[in-house]
Amino acid sequence: MEKWTGGDMHPSYRILMGPGPSNVHYRVYQAMSNPVIGYLDPQILACMDEISEMLRGVFQTENRVTLAISGTGSSGMEASYVNFVEPGDLVVIGVNGFFADRMTQVASRCGAKVVRVEEEWGKIIDPERMIKVLKEHPEAKICGLVHGETSTGVRQPLEEIGAYCKKVDTLLVVDAVTTLGGYDVRVDEWGIDVCYASSQKCLSVPPGLCPITVSPKAMDLLRSRKTKVQSFYLDLGLLEKYWGEDRVYHHTAPASMFYALREGLKIIFEEGLERRFRRHETLGDRLKMELEGFGFKLFAQEGYRLPMLTSVLLPEGVDDLKARSRLLNEYNIEVGAGLGWLKGKIWRVGLMGETCKVRYIHCLTGALRDILT
Amino acid sequence: MEKWTGGDMHPSYRILMGPGPSNVHYRVYQAMSNPVIGYLDPQILACMDEISEMLRGVFQTENRVTLAISGTGSSGMEASYVNFVEPGDLVVIGVNGFFADRMTQVASRCGAKVVRVEEEWGKIIDPERMIKVLKEHPEAKICGLVHGETSTGVRQPLEEIGAYCKKVDTLLVVDAVTTLGGYDVRVDEWGIDVCYASSQKCLSVPPGLCPITVSPKAMDLLRSRKTKVQSFYLDLGLLEKYWGEDRVYHHTAPASMFYALREGLKIIFEEGLERRFRRHETLGDRLKMELEGFGFKLFAQEGYRLPMLTSVLLPEGVDDLKARSRLLNEYNIEVGAGLGWLKGKIWRVGLMGETCKVRYIHCLTGALRDILT
Repeated sequence: MEKWTGGDMHPSYRILMGPGPSNVHYRVYQAMSNPVIGYLDPQILACMDEISEMLRGVFQTENRVTLAISGTGSSGMEASYVNFVEPGDLVVIGVNGFFADRMTQVASRCGAKVVRVEEEWGKIIDPERMIKVLKEHPEAKICGLVHGETSTGVRQPLEEIGAYCKKVDTLLVVDAVTTLGGYDVRVDEWGIDVCYASSQKCLSVPPGLCPITVSPKAMDLLRSRKTKVQSFYLDLGLLEKYWGEDRVYHHTAPASMFYALREGLKIIFEEGLERRFRRHETLGDRLKMELEGFGFKLFAQEGYRLPMLTSVLLPEGVDDLKARSRLLNEYNIEVGAGLGWLKGKIWRVGLMGETCKVRYIHCLTGALRDILT
Repeated sequence: MEKWTGGDMHPSYRILMGPGPSNVHYRVYQAMSNPVIGYLDPQILACMDEISEMLRGVFQTENRVTLAISGTGSSGMEASYVNFVEPGDLVVIGVNGFFADRMTQVASRCGAKVVRVEEEWGKIIDPERMIKVLKEHPEAKICGLVHGETSTGVRQPLEEIGAYCKKVDTLLVVDAVTTLGGYDVRVDEWGIDVCYASSQKCLSVPPGLCPITVSPKAMDLLRSRKTKVQSFYLDLGLLEKYWGEDRVYHHTAPASMFYALREGLKIIFEEGLERRFRRHETLGDRLKMELEGFGFKLFAQEGYRLPMLTSVLLPEGVDDLKARSRLLNEYNIEVGAGLGWLKGKIWRVGLMGETCKVRYIHCLTGALRDILT
């Protein structure tokens, strides 16, 4: 190919009510367009320090090792296992959805023996049952759970399991990809050892970064490994040396994405965590009520429904693909399809960060009125 | 933390003459600020197809599997080994610099037995010697080489080794992080099986993406593995299913970075590869001449000097840190320090993509005149 004949790209301005990405504040786009600087420039290092400090705020932790991995949420899931699992180690994972299942695959690829604590999709893992299994496996190195299961809309309670893990050697690894920035994630208080998230959901920053925080207990375990971490790119010991005081080059910092994350976090603290959580709670309830009015049935277990992601069974007679295509093409609204065996059966409707506004609920209900009634 | 008291961030407008990132065209920043869309949005899928097509152009390949990994160049190095190495496999790596050495570490972490073909930093790996070692190890699964060694400024000739690898079962893995977009990288003609690069050097796109291309021979090997790829995030089989026709969700596409890469590639084809390579060649020569005029000595082996990255030994009496700090703080010019044992001894001066303009050579020589004379 000598000449490229394609034109400009003008992506549509979607209302992103799927499972993420969510809409992005214009200040974040502006920040992202600031000039790129080098990976050891004092200004990028200062930016990284600020990101760490603000991430400690949203994770509600004092963990020194709190940073953003240069990859999406999935890279954080991998980092959470690859750094702590050595071949043959036992891990116990609560499996009640697509991402929990992915956790077991990731752990297996690190050479872990995986004990699956299965539950029906749409239900929580009963904490007492999880603790019982952990007691049966005192050698378990990791207990893995998904806080907000994006495939089902279920919010997993963590306090009891965290309290148990605090008392034993087992690390509690939590996927907060969907919840961070939209719901309480009390890393220190709940006893979470490794918690990862993503930039593009309730933080409302473009996809591409993965916030992660690691407890001193987990870092000690990392340092006492007998084998090297099988991933160089996701080695938290090396990332710590770059993000921490040593400033040893590991990879080229994605400066533009760092600018975006920094601005997105600033916006969160301008609103305040409490108010932000309340906004997600209130509008999540409102959305659920509206959808029920159209004949959708709430899929997730009552009392454990995520505010920022509502999973609903389609009303009789609604063609999944056709309805979603009309929403996207005629109304510029994205809602999420079902994952795995739920494909065609449910929708996943997100109200995350910047998208979590009453105006967008109105846009959706208006469109649904046109399409469905 | 309830309130964040930090202000706005206004990074300085640096002239990025280090080892990357390079300066970014304003059209790329503009494209990056387009609204984010979902990871299965028909518009993002079309964008990905266009990226693949243009990447095939710069890689000079017809490889179907040509895509951008959602990580930096280092993630591409890891992908190039993690997908093809199974525990106990033998790989032969030419080691004449920091990144070649990193290749051996990455390969080891995948469970490979590594044969190091060592050479003094600053010199090429003699192709005949490399082929001799490969002949001694007919079971070698991979031959790994760095095309443009960013730590030394050396350009490795690949044609002879590629021709040999074509005839045997060994895969040729090439790091083109520094060269792609600024120098000929003839993947098909030279017989390269896996070639990875980075967005932030001669492609002049912000850091965060890693273009990679994989030959059918390598994909066959991937499909015939006995064990699973140890990385889920970097599994090329899964990435192929997302980038290819199947469109199976793997991770959330970093839309903003994709927009940026698409625009950066468009700019490359507007200029044309040949003209672009000539620009790098001509101005690289000019820079070398200018630096020699200040008493810097060219570090890399004659005849094999990279046009886009010039490594120079500091003149007697020049304080590395002090001079680089003055360049950065007083003149907003970044040049690169030495890596590894070359720290304090050499500078690495980049002329990559958008930074490769005569005006920036003038800025640098003007500043050096102030500082050094």
